[in-house]
Amino acid sequence: MIDRAANAEDLHHLLTQVAAGTLSVEHAQQRLMAYEDLGFAKVDYQRADRQGFPEVVWGLGKSAGQIAEILDKLQAQHPIALATRIEPSSFVEIAQRLPLAHYYPLARICAVGKPEPKPGRITLVTAGTTDIPVAEEAAVTAELCGFQVTRLWDVGVSGLHRLLDNRQCLLEAEVLIVAAGMEGALPSVVGGLVSVPVIAVPTSVGYGASFGGVAALLSMLNSCASGLAVVNIDNGFGAAMLAARILNRRSG
Amino acid sequence: MIDRAANAEDLHHLLTQVAAGTLSVEHAQQRLMAYEDLGFAKVDYQRADRQGFPEVVWGLGKSAGQIAEILDKLQAQHPIALATRIEPSSFVEIAQRLPLAHYYPLARICAVGKPEPKPGRITLVTAGTTDIPVAEEAAVTAELCGFQVTRLWDVGVSGLHRLLDNRQCLLEAEVLIVAAGMEGALPSVVGGLVSVPVIAVPTSVGYGASFGGVAALLSMLNSCASGLAVVNIDNGFGAAMLAARILNRRSG
Amino acid sequence: MIDRAANAEDLHHLLTQVAAGTLSVEHAQQRLMAYEDLGFAKVDYQRADRQGFPEVVWGLGKSAGQIAEILDKLQAQHPIALATRIEPSSFVEIAQRLPLAHYYPLARICAVGKPEPKPGRITLVTAGTTDIPVAEEAAVTAELCGFQVTRLWDVGVSGLHRLLDNRQCLLEAEVLIVAAGMEGALPSVVGGLVSVPVIAVPTSVGYGASFGGVAALLSMLNSCASGLAVVNIDNGFGAAMLAARILNRRSG
Amino acid sequence: MIDRAANAEDLHHLLTQVAAGTLSVEHAQQRLMAYEDLGFAKVDYQRADRQGFPEVVWGLGKSAGQIAEILDKLQAQHPIALATRIEPSSFVEIAQRLPLAHYYPLARICAVGKPEPKPGRITLVTAGTTDIPVAEEAAVTAELCGFQVTRLWDVGVSGLHRLLDNRQCLLEAEVLIVAAGMEGALPSVVGGLVSVPVIAVPTSVGYGASFGGVAALLSMLNSCASGLAVVNIDNGFGAAMLAARILNRRSG
Amino acid sequence: MIDRAANAEDLHHLLTQVAAGTLSVEHAQQRLMAYEDLGFAKVDYQRADRQGFPEVVWGLGKSAGQIAEILDKLQAQHPIALATRIEPSSFVEIAQRLPLAHYYPLARICAVGKPEPKPGRITLVTAGTTDIPVAEEAAVTAELCGFQVTRLWDVGVSGLHRLLDNRQCLLEAEVLIVAAGMEGALPSVVGGLVSVPVIAVPTSVGYGASFGGVAALLSMLNSCASGLAVVNIDNGFGAAMLAARILNRRSG
Amino acid sequence: MIDRAANAEDLHHLLTQVAAGTLSVEHAQQRLMAYEDLGFAKVDYQRADRQGFPEVVWGLGKSAGQIAEILDKLQAQHPIALATRIEPSSFVEIAQRLPLAHYYPLARICAVGKPEPKPGRITLVTAGTTDIPVAEEAAVTAELCGFQVTRLWDVGVSGLHRLLDNRQCLLEAEVLIVAAGMEGALPSVVGGLVSVPVIAVPTSVGYGASFGGVAALLSMLNSCASGLAVVNIDNGFGAAMLAARILNRRSG
Amino acid sequence: MIDRAANAEDLHHLLTQVAAGTLSVEHAQQRLMAYEDLGFAKVDYQRADRQGFPEVVWGLGKSAGQIAEILDKLQAQHPIALATRIEPSSFVEIAQRLPLAHYYPLARICAVGKPEPKPGRITLVTAGTTDIPVAEEAAVTAELCGFQVTRLWDVGVSGLHRLLDNRQCLLEAEVLIVAAGMEGALPSVVGGLVSVPVIAVPTSVGYGASFGGVAALLSMLNSCASGLAVVNIDNGFGAAMLAARILNRRSG
Amino acid sequence: MIDRAANAEDLHHLLTQVAAGTLSVEHAQQRLMAYEDLGFAKVDYQRADRQGFPEVVWGLGKSAGQIAEILDKLQAQHPIALATRIEPSSFVEIAQRLPLAHYYPLARICAVGKPEPKPGRITLVTAGTTDIPVAEEAAVTAELCGFQVTRLWDVGVSGLHRLLDNRQCLLEAEVLIVAAGMEGALPSVVGGLVSVPVIAVPTSVGYGASFGGVAALLSMLNSCASGLAVVNIDNGFGAAMLAARILNRRSG
Repeated sequence: MIDRAANAEDLHHLLTQVAAGTLSVEHAQQRLMAYEDLGFAKVDYQRADRQGFPEVVWGLGKSAGQIAEILDKLQAQHPIALATRIEPSSFVEIAQRLPLAHYYPLARICAVGKPEPKPGRITLVTAGTTDIPVAEEAAVTAELCGFQVTRLWDVGVSGLHRLLDNRQCLLEAEVLIVAAGMEGALPSVVGGLVSVPVIAVPTSVGYGASFGGVAALLSMLNSCASGLAVVNIDNGFGAAMLAARILNRRSG
Repeated sequence: MIDRAANAEDLHHLLTQVAAGTLSVEHAQQRLMAYEDLGFAKVDYQRADRQGFPEVVWGLGKSAGQIAEILDKLQAQHPIALATRIEPSSFVEIAQRLPLAHYYPLARICAVGKPEPKPGRITLVTAGTTDIPVAEEAAVTAELCGFQVTRLWDVGVSGLHRLLDNRQCLLEAEVLIVAAGMEGALPSVVGGLVSVPVIAVPTSVGYGASFGGVAALLSMLNSCASGLAVVNIDNGFGAAMLAARILNRRSG
Repeated sequence: MIDRAANAEDLHHLLTQVAAGTLSVEHAQQRLMAYEDLGFAKVDYQRADRQGFPEVVWGLGKSAGQIAEILDKLQAQHPIALATRIEPSSFVEIAQRLPLAHYYPLARICAVGKPEPKPGRITLVTAGTTDIPVAEEAAVTAELCGFQVTRLWDVGVSGLHRLLDNRQCLLEAEVLIVAAGMEGALPSVVGGLVSVPVIAVPTSVGYGASFGGVAALLSMLNSCASGLAVVNIDNGFGAAMLAARILNRRSG
Repeated sequence: MIDRAANAEDLHHLLTQVAAGTLSVEHAQQRLMAYEDLGFAKVDYQRADRQGFPEVVWGLGKSAGQIAEILDKLQAQHPIALATRIEPSSFVEIAQRLPLAHYYPLARICAVGKPEPKPGRITLVTAGTTDIPVAEEAAVTAELCGFQVTRLWDVGVSGLHRLLDNRQCLLEAEVLIVAAGMEGALPSVVGGLVSVPVIAVPTSVGYGASFGGVAALLSMLNSCASGLAVVNIDNGFGAAMLAARILNRRSG
Repeated sequence: MIDRAANAEDLHHLLTQVAAGTLSVEHAQQRLMAYEDLGFAKVDYQRADRQGFPEVVWGLGKSAGQIAEILDKLQAQHPIALATRIEPSSFVEIAQRLPLAHYYPLARICAVGKPEPKPGRITLVTAGTTDIPVAEEAAVTAELCGFQVTRLWDVGVSGLHRLLDNRQCLLEAEVLIVAAGMEGALPSVVGGLVSVPVIAVPTSVGYGASFGGVAALLSMLNSCASGLAVVNIDNGFGAAMLAARILNRRSG
Repeated sequence: MIDRAANAEDLHHLLTQVAAGTLSVEHAQQRLMAYEDLGFAKVDYQRADRQGFPEVVWGLGKSAGQIAEILDKLQAQHPIALATRIEPSSFVEIAQRLPLAHYYPLARICAVGKPEPKPGRITLVTAGTTDIPVAEEAAVTAELCGFQVTRLWDVGVSGLHRLLDNRQCLLEAEVLIVAAGMEGALPSVVGGLVSVPVIAVPTSVGYGASFGGVAALLSMLNSCASGLAVVNIDNGFGAAMLAARILNRRSG
Repeated sequence: MIDRAANAEDLHHLLTQVAAGTLSVEHAQQRLMAYEDLGFAKVDYQRADRQGFPEVVWGLGKSAGQIAEILDKLQAQHPIALATRIEPSSFVEIAQRLPLAHYYPLARICAVGKPEPKPGRITLVTAGTTDIPVAEEAAVTAELCGFQVTRLWDVGVSGLHRLLDNRQCLLEAEVLIVAAGMEGALPSVVGGLVSVPVIAVPTSVGYGASFGGVAALLSMLNSCASGLAVVNIDNGFGAAMLAARILNRRSG
Repeated sequence: MIDRAANAEDLHHLLTQVAAGTLSVEHAQQRLMAYEDLGFAKVDYQRADRQGFPEVVWGLGKSAGQIAEILDKLQAQHPIALATRIEPSSFVEIAQRLPLAHYYPLARICAVGKPEPKPGRITLVTAGTTDIPVAEEAAVTAELCGFQVTRLWDVGVSGLHRLLDNRQCLLEAEVLIVAAGMEGALPSVVGGLVSVPVIAVPTSVGYGASFGGVAALLSMLNSCASGLAVVNIDNGFGAAMLAARILNRRSG
C-alpha cells in the first residue's frame, strides 16, 4: 500500500469506528484494501485517496457484465460510481443488474449513487452544436464529481459576436473547458481573453483533412495563447477530471 | 500552340506592326514563340496570355546562372521578370549578369523591370512578427504584378483587440491574404468578419507539434468560416498569384 | 454587435419601415438580432451581412430535429435556408417538419425557399464520374446562392483530348471549381490553361495510397500552376462559397 | 479596448495618480494603450490584465533587434519583461541595447526587470538528465512570474525506486510539471500518485521512432491516469504559464 | 529442401521406422515433404524443424473452407494444429469439417490436437481489462505450444500499487509478455523491475490520438527501460512465438 | 483529336471499308469519335490507340447503371470491355442490362466480349493465400488483355524453400507480378533472383502497423533489389496494365 | 551457389578457355566465385548473371575508401563498375585510388570502365529544371548500362503546350522515365498519351506540404493513367535499372 | 529500496565482508545505496541487481562533463561502465577526466573497465555495409557485457546466395541480431530459417520513402516470420541488452 499514510486523519476516523463497534471488521477491511481482484479487473479502492476521485470505469471494450460488476464494487466503497462511453444497449443490460443506475444519453455516462457537493464551478464552452456530446461528457462528469457547471454552446469563431456577447460569462469563470472540432480555433481565442486555466478539448467533429480530430488537436497544442491545457481528442471526461484537480486545490 | 487564338486582338495588333514595319520580323517571331528552349529550361512566353502574368522563376534548386539566364529571356518579352526564393548570396551572382536586377531581402525576391499598374488592392495580414517574411513574399509579388497593397502585421488571436481595432481595414479590403503559423486560427476569425475572398497562407512558424506548418495548414483547411482559399505552407507567392487572378476578373 | 454599421443603408431602410408602420417592432427586432439562442445552437442572423450569404447548416452529427429547427429559424430571416450533408433518411424527418423543404439527392443538400438571382456564373469540372457528388454539392450550393452554373464532367488527364476539346468552355469561365480524386492532377492542368481563379477540390475518390483524398489534396497544394485555391477534401460547399465571395466582388 | 473594465480598481488608482500629478499624462496614456504598433509588431500592453501575465516575446525567427525593441517597450510598462528561445549569440546583441538584460543559458531565456513575488510553488520533475533544458525553461519562467519552484531531476520509470523515494516531494506539491522524452511514461505514473494538477511536457529527447517528441506527446495524450494537462513538445514556457493560471486562481 | 539436415537424428529415426516397417513409405514420404501444394496455399511441413513450431494458420482474409483444409493437412503431420483470428461464425463452419476442433472465444483461436508439454513458463501481464483479449491470444498460443502460463491482469500504471503488490510474480517470471494500450507505459515500468526478457505488446485499446495502438507502439519502441522486445499492435500470437523461441533455447 | 494520326494504317483501312461500303458511315463515324459524352461520363474511344488497351471502367463509387451503360458503349467499339472492383450485388444488376457479361468473383472483375490473343506470358506470384484476390485481379485482367498467365501462390519468405523450389518458374518468366502484404519482402527477394521486370504490388493484407498496406508499399519502394516497379496498394489491375505495356513493346 | 546453372553456355565457354590455357585457373576461379568477402562488404559477382547488370555501389553512408575498394573489385570482373550518390569531395579521394575513375557531377555518379553498347533507347523527361539532377542520375546510369538516351527537360503541366509540342518525341519512345516533384502530375499526363511503359520518378523538389517528395510519390501511385511504374523518391538509378530490365527483354 | 531483497546471497556476502573488516563501512554504504544524486542525474546503482546489467549512459544531449561524472560514479561500483552515442569530439573531453576510458569509433561507445566474461554468444548480421555502425553498437555492447560475438556483414536479400552460403552460421547461433535498413526484409528471411530468437534492428539507412528507417521498422513489425523481436530504429544498444536478457536466462 502506498498512499494510505497520506490520509492519517481519515484512517484514524475509520479505526475509531471499528473500535467503537460502529463499523464491522469486514467492512473496515474492505475499505482499507488497496484494490480488489475480480480476475478480469483489479478495482482500485485507493484512487480517491490518491487522486481525489474514485476510479471511473472506461466502458469501451468492456462487456456490460464486466462494467456492472466493477460499478457494483465501486459503489460499495464510494458515494458515487461512474462509467463512461456506455452505449444505450449496454446500459439496458447494466440496469438489469444495477437497478439504481442512471443513464445520461448525450454524455453516454452511467452512474450509481449521488455526489457530495464540492465548492467550485466549471464553465463549459463549445464551438458548435456537434461538439455538444463531448462537452456533455465533461459536464456530466463534473456534476457527478459534485461541482456546479455553466454551459455555453455554439459560440465558434466564424460568428465572433456570439462569443464576445458572452464575454462576461467567460470572465467570471473559475476554470474553462472549451470543446471544438474542425480547425479548433476557439480555445486560442478564449485563452487570449481570460486569465483562468483553459482546458482545450479537440473533438472529432469534421471530415476530410480534419483526420478525426487531429487538425483540432494540433491547433490547440500550437496555440499562440500561452497556457492552454490540452487533452486527448473527444476526451470530455479527462477535461473534467483535470478541472476537478484544479478546483480541488482550493481547499488545500 | 494552344492559346494564341484567345487574344485575337493582340495578335492582330502585332501583325499590323510588322506590316507597318514598326516591329521587325525577328522581334515579332520571338514574341509569337510559345516558349524558348534553353536546354535546362523551356521558358514559357505564353504564360502571360494564358494565365494573366508572365512565368516566374522559382529559385529553389536552380543555380544563379540558370536563374539569371531565364530572367534575361523573360525580361526581353515582358515589362517585368521575377524570381522567388532567392538567397542573398545567389542575388550577388545574378546581379553580376543582370545589373538592373533589384533584390527584396525580406521577401527573398529578385526582379528586373517595372510593373504596369493594375487596378485593385490586396490587403495582407499576419498573425505574428515571424510570419512577416512569408507575407512580404506575397506583398512584393503583388506590387510587382502592379497592384497596390495594404500591410497589417501582428494581429493574431491571442490579443483579439488588436484585430478588432483594425476591423475597418478588413472591411474595406477587396481581397485578403492572411498568413499565420502555429495554430493558424487567424484566417478563420477574419473569414468570419468579411465577405470578400480570404486567402489563407499557413506558415512554418512554430515548433514541436506544428510539424513545419502542418498544424496551421490543417486548421485553415478545416476552417469553420466557409469559403477560405488555402495555399501551400509558406507560399506567399502563390497567395499573391491567386489574389491577382481574383482581381484580374474585374476588367473581364 | 459588430458589423451592422457596415450596412447603414439597409439599417436606415428597416427603421424607416418601422417608423412607417409597415414593419412591426417585433419583426424588426428579430431582424436586428445578432443571433438567436436555441440552446443547442446560436443561429447567426448577421452572417449574410458579414459574409455575403446566410449561415448554412452543416448536417453531419446533428439530429434531424436540430437541423429542421435551425432551418426554420433561418428561413424566417432570409429568402433561402440551406443544409448540407443530409442523408436521405434524415431528409424524410426534416420534411415532416418543413413540408416546403426540397432535397437534392446527389448533392445531399436540403433547402427551403428560393434564391434571388445574382450576376455571375460558376463553371464546375470533374476529373471522373465518381467525383460528381462532390461537384454537385458545389453546383447546387452555387445555384441556391443565385448564381448560374456550367457543368463539365469526366475530363481527367488520362484522356487529355476530352479536356482540350472543351478548352473553350474553360476559357469562357468566370471562376472554375475543379474536383478530382486519385492523383488530383486536373486542377494543375486547368490552372495552366486559364487566367481566372481556379478552386481545387480534392475528393476522397481512390483507394490504397490515396488515403481518403490526401494524395489529391497534397497534389493541389503543391501545384506547379501558381495561383490555385485549395479547399478541404470533399468540400464542394466550401468551394462554392469561395466562388461566391469571388463573384460577389463584382458589384463592389 | 476590451478588458480594461475588468480592472476598475487599478484604473481608478492610475487616474487618481494623474489627478494628483504623480503620474504624467504621457505615461498614463501609454499605460492605458491597448497596444503599441512598432510596425513589425503590435506590443500587447493589455495582456497582463487579460491573462494575468504580460506578453512574452517568443524569440524563434525574430531578429535580436526586434526582440530588444519589444522587450524595451514591455519593461517600460511592467515590472519584468521576458523573451524565450534566445540563442547565446542573439543575447549578446540584445545586451548591447538592453544592458540590464539577464540571460539564463540552460533555459535560453532573457529577462529584464524583477518579478513581484506571488504566493504558490511549482514542482518540476524530469524523467532524465537530457530533459532538464525544457524543464528549466519552465522553472525560470515560473520564477520570473514570481512563484517559488522545486526541482526534481532524473526520476524516470526505468528506475522506479528513484521516483518512489521522492514520493513525499510529489505529495506536497501544489501543481506539478513533468517533462519526459522517449516513451513519456513518467507523467502517467506521477498522475496516478497525486491529486493535484499534473502538467505533462513531452520533450524531443530520443531518436528513431520518437519522431522528435511525438511518441512522448502521444503517450501523454493517451495517459491512463485521468486528468493530465498536455502542452506542446518542448513547451516548458507554456507549462509554466498554465501552472501560473492554476496558481493565480487562489487569490481569486 | 533446406533444413532437413539440421535434424539428422530425427531423420535417422524416421528412416529406421521405414526400414522396420513401422512407418509406411507413403506416410514417411509425406512427412519428408518440404511442403504440400493445395493450390491456394503451400502448407509448410518443415516449419517445425526450422522454427521450432509448426506453421500456424492466420485466419484473417481466409475462407472457413481454406482454414479447415490447411488445419486438416497440418494436424496429419503434427500433434497440434492452430489457427488464429478466427471469428465465431467461421469456427462453426470449420467445426463441420473438423469435428475435433476446439475454439477459444476470448483468444479467437481454433485448434486441433493436443500439445506436448514443454519445460518453461510464460508470465502474461495486462495494463487493463480491455487488453485481455490480446493477452489471451498470447496465453492460449503459449499453452498450445506446451508451455505453462501465469496470468496477471489489470495492473496498469495509473494504480501503481496493484503492480508493486505483484512484484514477486514478476521477479519469478522466466519470460514476460506485457500487453498495454493507450499510453503503453506498463512494459517500461516492468522492464525496469526485472532482468528477464520482456515482450511488449501494444494493443489497439484507446481512442482519439491513440491511433489504433500507434501511441502504445511508439511508447514501447522508445522505452527508457533498455532491452524490451516489441511486436506488432495486437500481436499476441507473435509475442507467444517469441517467448517460445526464448524458452526453446533452454534445451539447446 | 490528338493521336489518331499515329495509326495511319488503321485509319486508311477503316476509310477503305467505308469507301467499299463494307462499313456504314455511322459506324465509321462512331469509331472515329475521340470520345462519347454520356453526361456522367465521357467514354474514351481513343484509349486503345493511345495506350494499347481500351478504357477500363473502375467500379468503385459508380452505380450499376452507370457501369452497365459505359460497358455497353465500350463493347460496341472494342472486342472486349472490362470493369474492375465490381461487387457481386452490383454484377447482378449489370447482368440484367448486359446478359453476356461475365463475372470473375475472386478478381471482382466483370467483362463483356472476348480478348484477341496476344503474344506474351505474365507470371504472377503471391506471398500468401490472402494476397490471392489482388493477384487474381491482375491475372484476370492479363487474360482479358489476351496474354497467357502463370500463377504461383503462397511462396512468401517465411518458408523460403517454397520459393526456391519454384525458382525455375521465376527464371523462365517474361515479366513478373509479385503481390505481398504484411512486410512485403517477397518482391525484393524475387527481384534479386531474376533479370526481367518485377512489378511489386503491395496488398492491404495485415493488421496493426501494416496500416492498410503502407508497410508493404514502403518495403517495395525501398527495395535493395534495384529495378522494381511499384504500383498502388491492392492495385492488381494497374500491375497487369504495366505488364501489358511491357509485353506490348515486343511487337514494336 | 544459386544461379550459375542458368548460364550454361557462358560457363561452358569459360571452362573451354581454361582448358585451352587462355584463361588462368586463378582468374577463372575468381570469375566463378559467387561473391568476395571484403569484411565490410560481400561483393556480389553473380549479380550480372542473375539480374542482367553488375552490382552497383550505393555511396550514401560508405567511406570513400570502402567505395574505392568495392569498385576496384567489381571492375576486375566486369567491363564497367558504377557508384551512385557520390559527393564531389568523396570522388577526389576515390580518384586517388582509382585514377581511371570518371565523375558525372550533375548525376553524382562515379564510374570505372566502359559499357558495352546494348540495343535500346531510354527517353527521359522532367517536369522542371530542378528535377534534372534526378533525371541525370537515371540518364547517366542508362548510358553506362550501354543504352542510348534522349533527354526532354522542363515540360511540366503548367505549360502544357511545351509537352504537346514534343509529343512526337514521346510517341517514338521505347520506354519513358518521367521525373517530377511538387504535385507530380506529369507522369499521369504522359501515361495517358503513350502505350509504352512509363516509369514515374517522384523527386524531392518542392517545399511545405510536398513533404520531401511524398506529395509527388502519392500522385504517381494514384495516377488515373493505368500502368505506371513507380520508384522511390529521387531514385533515378532505380528507374534506369527498371528501364534496363524492360529493354533487356528484347533479346530474350 | 525495492529489489535488494532479491539478492539475499550477495547482500549476505557484502555484510560478511564488512563484519570481517575486509570492506569499509563507507564502501559498503555506497554499494548499498539505491542511487546517488548528482543534481543533474540520479545514478542508479541498483540497476545491475534489477535488470542484470549496470546503468548505461545515453550520450545524446548530455555534456561531456556530465557523461564523465556519471561514468566515474558507475565505475566505482561496477567492473565496467559504458556510454553510448558518444561523438569523437566528446570523447576527447571525457578522456581528459577519465584517462582509462576507451573509445570504439564505429560503435560510438566509450567504456571504462573490463567486463567479466559470461557464457553465451550473440550472432550479429547486417543486410548491407552501411548498417554496420548500428550493428557495431550492438556488438561492442555485447562484448562489454561479457558475451562472445560473431559478425556476419552484408548478406542482404538482393543477393540471397550470400545469406544461404552462411546458413550454417545462422543455424549455430544462440540468439541473432539482424540489422537492416531500406526495406528491412532480412530479419523476416532469417526468422524463417532458424528457431532461436531473432532481434530485428531497423536502421535509418535509406532515403526518400524510407523516412529515416520507418519503412524498415514497419517491415519488421509486420514480418510474416512469426516471433521476431523488434527494437527502435538504429537501436543497436537495445538489441544487445535484449540479447543479454535472453542469454542471462541460462544461468537462472
